[in-house]
Amino acid sequence: MICDHLDRVLQDLTARYEQVCVVGDASIQHSVVSIQKFGEWSALWLEVSEERKSLETVQAIWDFLFAQSMTRRGVLVCIGGGVLTDIAGLAAATYKRGIDYINVPTTLLAMVDASTGGKTGINYGGLKNSIGVFAPPVETLIWPEWLKTLPAKEFLNGYAEMLKTGLIAESGRLWDRLLQYDPDQMDIAPLTALIADCVAAKEQIVKQDPREEGLRKVLNLGHTFGHALEEMNNQHAEVSSQMPHGYAVLYGLIAELYLSVTKLACPKEPLQQLTQLMLHYYGRPVCKCSDRDELIRLMQQDKKNERAAEINCTLISNIAQPVINQIITIEEANEALEYLFSL
Amino acid sequence: MICDHLDRVLQDLTARYEQVCVVGDASIQHSVVSIQKFGEWSALWLEVSEERKSLETVQAIWDFLFAQSMTRRGVLVCIGGGVLTDIAGLAAATYKRGIDYINVPTTLLAMVDASTGGKTGINYGGLKNSIGVFAPPVETLIWPEWLKTLPAKEFLNGYAEMLKTGLIAESGRLWDRLLQYDPDQMDIAPLTALIADCVAAKEQIVKQDPREEGLRKVLNLGHTFGHALEEMNNQHAEVSSQMPHGYAVLYGLIAELYLSVTKLACPKEPLQQLTQLMLHYYGRPVCKCSDRDELIRLMQQDKKNERAAEINCTLISNIAQPVINQIITIEEANEALEYLFSL
Repeated sequence: MICDHLDRVLQDLTARYEQVCVVGDASIQHSVVSIQKFGEWSALWLEVSEERKSLETVQAIWDFLFAQSMTRRGVLVCIGGGVLTDIAGLAAATYKRGIDYINVPTTLLAMVDASTGGKTGINYGGLKNSIGVFAPPVETLIWPEWLKTLPAKEFLNGYAEMLKTGLIAESGRLWDRLLQYDPDQMDIAPLTALIADCVAAKEQIVKQDPREEGLRKVLNLGHTFGHALEEMNNQHAEVSSQMPHGYAVLYGLIAELYLSVTKLACPKEPLQQLTQLMLHYYGRPVCKCSDRDELIRLMQQDKKNERAAEINCTLISNIAQPVINQIITIEEANEALEYLFSL
Repeated sequence: MICDHLDRVLQDLTARYEQVCVVGDASIQHSVVSIQKFGEWSALWLEVSEERKSLETVQAIWDFLFAQSMTRRGVLVCIGGGVLTDIAGLAAATYKRGIDYINVPTTLLAMVDASTGGKTGINYGGLKNSIGVFAPPVETLIWPEWLKTLPAKEFLNGYAEMLKTGLIAESGRLWDRLLQYDPDQMDIAPLTALIADCVAAKEQIVKQDPREEGLRKVLNLGHTFGHALEEMNNQHAEVSSQMPHGYAVLYGLIAELYLSVTKLACPKEPLQQLTQLMLHYYGRPVCKCSDRDELIRLMQQDKKNERAAEINCTLISNIAQPVINQIITIEEANEALEYLFSL
């Protein structure tokens, strides 16, 4: 199935572009290997991870493109999860001052988040996505067939970003529909419709503010606390004990919904619903977070901040009513962390 | 004078931006050092050269910005020649997915070429400007006072790019006025007017095609041969024996005007005028160019090419009549090189 899709896309691209190169996540190479019979396009398969979301990996892609004598009239097809598409998008956007690229996300998280919106980036100087550009792919191809092979943890990883979208999207119905979805069943048909609606909601927001100068910050709900938890937990962690991005976002959503309740009088129901989901599916945050000062320092360094050393969050005053640029004091941040860790 | 200008600009920026950082060419630090008394802004002074137009130098700027906790609401002021502004522009465009930057060009070449138009870049994989993005500065501040300190060679370096602009600009008058200018006198007042007209002519072109998808290629006149000569000569050369960019462009203009005459029946006069200028001011190309195959290989790899392994030039059919996407055969390229080296 996936091979048929890819076959068709690559044939079509070969007609439209001078040259087609592929950068893919090595872990999905086996799913598409049968296509290599076409031999018209060259592929680089990369082992990727948060540690390898680095300048060195961008250089590996540049070196591959130079070795293929890729011109500006070529196109780079990026197949993989969000880490792969973030890195490859940056490589494409900077190679010869930018070539077209196409995203083929293979995880739920990449489908609903990383592969649309035009953010590319790598980790640098110990900070997540601290180097990058805004450069949208010319197309994002979402094939729900990939999801059939997903383990439960990968589903939950993307589901958290979908829940975030449900909390901020203009139609409050999306939130209700997401809560009604049963992660234990993993029905593909309703999930496909939910993915489409989440992507559409995100694109609607990004279109109005592509460079995150204002409105787009609503998409950062859950991410100020989420990024800090993820960074701190994963700094020295073995791959096996790392906190996946979506899990970090879910914990971040809980901390930030707690602040939404205390600071903006948001109704308690969404916080309670998220807490239930956490206890039932995600588990409590297993986090070496005794060092709260370090978590707060990481939040102060977040690139989303408008001013140095402040903590800037997106909160909500209700479902579908996000409020950007909420400045959080250190006391408030500690209180939210206390709530999260005492659940 | 320069210090007064900079003082005013930095004060003004401090009012408009959350944070102001400066990246400057170490060789002009002494000209602006008196301003450091203000102490409100941090500066990084870099030794730059074509060799240091590298990823490592971009990293040095990123590291400086992270050390200053620069937020997205800050501005980077880039003071120096084209090499400095190209590197610093790329660093600014990729730091936290892009911050505002301002160019303060200190050489004639940077004033009329590098510091406007939005091209940023570094050399990578042995190829000039092969990694970069299109990201225009929010402002370019041109102060002709810098020119009073220029040695003759630096003037000629920028003058060649001005001559190129004169050959393609809509008003043929610019070409005549440039030829009337006397490089031996170095009168600042008429030069200031010529700079302004060259910048305006370039901006007029860039505005219509910011990402070089068509029209903007007229600006590449002289650069297919020029870049190859520059790269080949400078690959293993000591700094003292390197060919400056403007000199390479002048030689490239002669080769490409030769092809304009033979392929597009361009009148011979501009070629003769450029040849006179070369013999009188620039001197013949002192170039280790016995290896013509290598020069041709470099031209085939030029990132301006639309297809791999072809040689793509901008030519002119007359003054003010540029013609883009002219494909040159290897025989024609050899003939043009033969003409240039036999002068």
